[in-house]
Amino acid sequence: MLGTFQENDQVLLITQKGNRYFFTLRTKRRYHTNEGSFDADAIIGKIEGSEVISSTGQKAVIFRPTITESLLFLPRKTQITYPKDLGFLIAVTGLGPGSRVIEGGTGSGVLALFLAWHVRPGGKVYSYDIDDEFFPAIHRHVENLGLSDVIELKKGDLSISVEENNVDVFIADVPEPWKTVESAYNALRPGGMYAAIVPTIEQLIKTSTALKTSGFFEYISGELFFRPWRVKEGMSRPHHKMRAHTVFIIVGRKTMIKDTTLWSLKLPDGYR
Amino acid sequence: MLGTFQENDQVLLITQKGNRYFFTLRTKRRYHTNEGSFDADAIIGKIEGSEVISSTGQKAVIFRPTITESLLFLPRKTQITYPKDLGFLIAVTGLGPGSRVIEGGTGSGVLALFLAWHVRPGGKVYSYDIDDEFFPAIHRHVENLGLSDVIELKKGDLSISVEENNVDVFIADVPEPWKTVESAYNALRPGGMYAAIVPTIEQLIKTSTALKTSGFFEYISGELFFRPWRVKEGMSRPHHKMRAHTVFIIVGRKTMIKDTTLWSLKLPDGYR
Amino acid sequence: MLGTFQENDQVLLITQKGNRYFFTLRTKRRYHTNEGSFDADAIIGKIEGSEVISSTGQKAVIFRPTITESLLFLPRKTQITYPKDLGFLIAVTGLGPGSRVIEGGTGSGVLALFLAWHVRPGGKVYSYDIDDEFFPAIHRHVENLGLSDVIELKKGDLSISVEENNVDVFIADVPEPWKTVESAYNALRPGGMYAAIVPTIEQLIKTSTALKTSGFFEYISGELFFRPWRVKEGMSRPHHKMRAHTVFIIVGRKTMIKDTTLWSLKLPDGYR
Amino acid sequence: MLGTFQENDQVLLITQKGNRYFFTLRTKRRYHTNEGSFDADAIIGKIEGSEVISSTGQKAVIFRPTITESLLFLPRKTQITYPKDLGFLIAVTGLGPGSRVIEGGTGSGVLALFLAWHVRPGGKVYSYDIDDEFFPAIHRHVENLGLSDVIELKKGDLSISVEENNVDVFIADVPEPWKTVESAYNALRPGGMYAAIVPTIEQLIKTSTALKTSGFFEYISGELFFRPWRVKEGMSRPHHKMRAHTVFIIVGRKTMIKDTTLWSLKLPDGYR
Repeated sequence: MLGTFQENDQVLLITQKGNRYFFTLRTKRRYHTNEGSFDADAIIGKIEGSEVISSTGQKAVIFRPTITESLLFLPRKTQITYPKDLGFLIAVTGLGPGSRVIEGGTGSGVLALFLAWHVRPGGKVYSYDIDDEFFPAIHRHVENLGLSDVIELKKGDLSISVEENNVDVFIADVPEPWKTVESAYNALRPGGMYAAIVPTIEQLIKTSTALKTSGFFEYISGELFFRPWRVKEGMSRPHHKMRAHTVFIIVGRKTMIKDTTLWSLKLPDGYR
Repeated sequence: MLGTFQENDQVLLITQKGNRYFFTLRTKRRYHTNEGSFDADAIIGKIEGSEVISSTGQKAVIFRPTITESLLFLPRKTQITYPKDLGFLIAVTGLGPGSRVIEGGTGSGVLALFLAWHVRPGGKVYSYDIDDEFFPAIHRHVENLGLSDVIELKKGDLSISVEENNVDVFIADVPEPWKTVESAYNALRPGGMYAAIVPTIEQLIKTSTALKTSGFFEYISGELFFRPWRVKEGMSRPHHKMRAHTVFIIVGRKTMIKDTTLWSLKLPDGYR
Repeated sequence: MLGTFQENDQVLLITQKGNRYFFTLRTKRRYHTNEGSFDADAIIGKIEGSEVISSTGQKAVIFRPTITESLLFLPRKTQITYPKDLGFLIAVTGLGPGSRVIEGGTGSGVLALFLAWHVRPGGKVYSYDIDDEFFPAIHRHVENLGLSDVIELKKGDLSISVEENNVDVFIADVPEPWKTVESAYNALRPGGMYAAIVPTIEQLIKTSTALKTSGFFEYISGELFFRPWRVKEGMSRPHHKMRAHTVFIIVGRKTMIKDTTLWSLKLPDGYR
Repeated sequence: MLGTFQENDQVLLITQKGNRYFFTLRTKRRYHTNEGSFDADAIIGKIEGSEVISSTGQKAVIFRPTITESLLFLPRKTQITYPKDLGFLIAVTGLGPGSRVIEGGTGSGVLALFLAWHVRPGGKVYSYDIDDEFFPAIHRHVENLGLSDVIELKKGDLSISVEENNVDVFIADVPEPWKTVESAYNALRPGGMYAAIVPTIEQLIKTSTALKTSGFFEYISGELFFRPWRVKEGMSRPHHKMRAHTVFIIVGRKTMIKDTTLWSLKLPDGYR
């Protein structure tokens, strides 16, 4: 039946206790969890949202991971990129199907793959990293996600060697994004969008300052909080813990004016 | 020259004082602002990011609005939808090019147009509203944005009359989203995503509760804050004011289990 | 020497790894921690802020706990009350030395002791609980803190049996604070302040609603977030995790008007 | 009757539309507001919480301002200090009746008066400012609040000329608090608390860094948000706007260790 799980499909399995497991279906395999093991053959042929039972009688439900979920499960050395920040980058830069984007450092590929998913078809993500160690692993995901036409992994330094031009968006996820501002200016089309994501406040300050003296408007700088709620009728409240910090985001826009330090951009509607 | 402003283009004009104006270019027109008037003919032929001067000598820069910016300028009766929330809906539901989405109430069309922009080509947004008063105005924007193939405006009540099925995502932006949960269940494909955006906490509680007894996992419930920063070297700080609240977002996922009240989903990675 | 540690003093010991231990000094004792044991006799005679060394060579510094710190270390069944919320209650109600306060449920006594510390001398805290199980333990802390004249523990139900009147402040930390609104009205002096602290949003809504129909202005309702920062030059950022929620706080003020539902109080300066 | 309004009393008048007015009662005066004028003689003799009517028929209620409210109405050149921050300073430093505190810059006196109110009787606030321009105005408030024995205004520079020693708490509300760290160390008793409140992140970083190399533990650094809620049954939600930023707060504690850079203090309970 259309849409049922088949060999080689990715599975997101969520147990009744709320734990999440992620694996690729192979016939005759068993997937071991803290709540017993799950039989691949009992999953093959089922539709999404079905209940399955572990060897110890624990209930679970099977789904296909969304693009965002599958990226959260990628092995990585560097810090996770959060859905709130990924979504914001799309909304604030205006990128979409057909957009041409330069991005780097590639790292584990999460951001590059997410962007590639959203600029297909017809768009392109040029993802740079000075270290191509993860490229083979990322290529496998590119294949699995059917993104071969959309993403190009390139060994190189965003602050030196960018080859493309007239791109719509340039996203820097590197330790010193202020050093990428000049190559971004050259690579972007007029009116193109620059975004940097940085963990520390000193990086925010340096990047924002560099933008203003390098031909960009500093469009918006800030940070996002996601605050989860736990709803139970009569006892509803926010969760006790939340993420206090992921990254600061700086967004610039390419102008024909060299120095915009004296332009006092107000916070636009939608950001205040 | 490729990419220069032409008649009928949309213009986002930002003055040196930081005010933003939005208009459609018509030859021989002047655009009046608090900082003097701007001459259409001086804009036509210019590239994005160029500086223009008002009748009173004020400087400004001209851009094409991004999709998100153009939606923020749509006339509307209802409250603005914020970029942070729009982006989050994309990231959390996993929708992208090719996705089929039911959405409503249409209202001013902001959410429908944003979603349509991101599911093109090949995807579809079926946008329902019980009141078709704004449909003609929205149709003009659909034309301008080249989204005619992607969006379908339908007069009808999300909680009663949904005609599509096997859709990937169902988004309710209506006063009583808990009443749409049953029709959403019928319209969604197995594993499909439901999202509601609501201003009040009582709506959050009712919708979350309805999901759990109607075949959905309550995947995630919460709210986003955007906190803007004002960077000046040596004097950097957050802005003084921020938005304390836009909407609560509730995300559910269709399962084959009728009642998920006893399933205690943990906050997944990326949301905690 | 004046101010040196003596037998029976309370000690807050902080190790170089950042762990905190709290104990009462007894001669010839050793205090065991994960970082080795500390010798009481090596602490006695030292001044605050001095370095001491554990049996395994780990460094630590010794302090006297502040009132707030000593309360955080009280054994308790119920949830901790946070410094941010304790301080806010003082600031928003205007209580200080000399104030007469009714408070309950006593619980572990944290709030009662904190308030007593701040209304001494001359003030009084009448702390009610329907269960006097913890009263003996609290009495010991009352003695240690020298608060015997200031605090009175009373077995009784805040919503029924309040005996005092003309008090300045009434603070309800009970599961159903809306049931205390009437007895609070009777106990408070004209213009007196009512405050409730509640974990759930339903309690916030019920209490706020009860206040407005029982002779109170709803002065302010809201919640506080504390966001910690981790400063290292060149790598400064907020901590990764924070508390997403402790309590909602509702503050009312006694008026001579029965129903204030139609009075639309604006957020005062200092709260917006 | 005891507690009724008399000539020279301070009045906080809140209208039904929610506006707040603050004045000192003088017989035969009228107080003019946007909602008509109020007659002093109609207020004299009334108790707190009573309703009064303006010349145009608008209703209002009269209160005595709390200490916190009266400080918010002080004329000032500098930025308001928020109740959330005032309360936090009390809770985190552990100051209370009897404490000896050095504070500065005095500015409009808000912080000094608030602290004085809470250390009386027996305590003392030494408030320093390099500019004594506001001292006469502040002295009047000191008289009105009966704080003459508790507060001492001193012309001088916190970073140079502090005369007191063995104080319990030292609070710096000055542009360069890192320059006060050394004089604070000399003025504080062992184990004494240092706190700085600063608007910018660069000040936070410099002050935190200075503390760690000057004999202090950096106890806690962070910021507080107050998020107001607007409760109406069935339509409850946070207010739309909130304060995004007031100040960063840095709290240190005096040790006998010169350099604490290598001590990695964890966030204590109550702050995480």
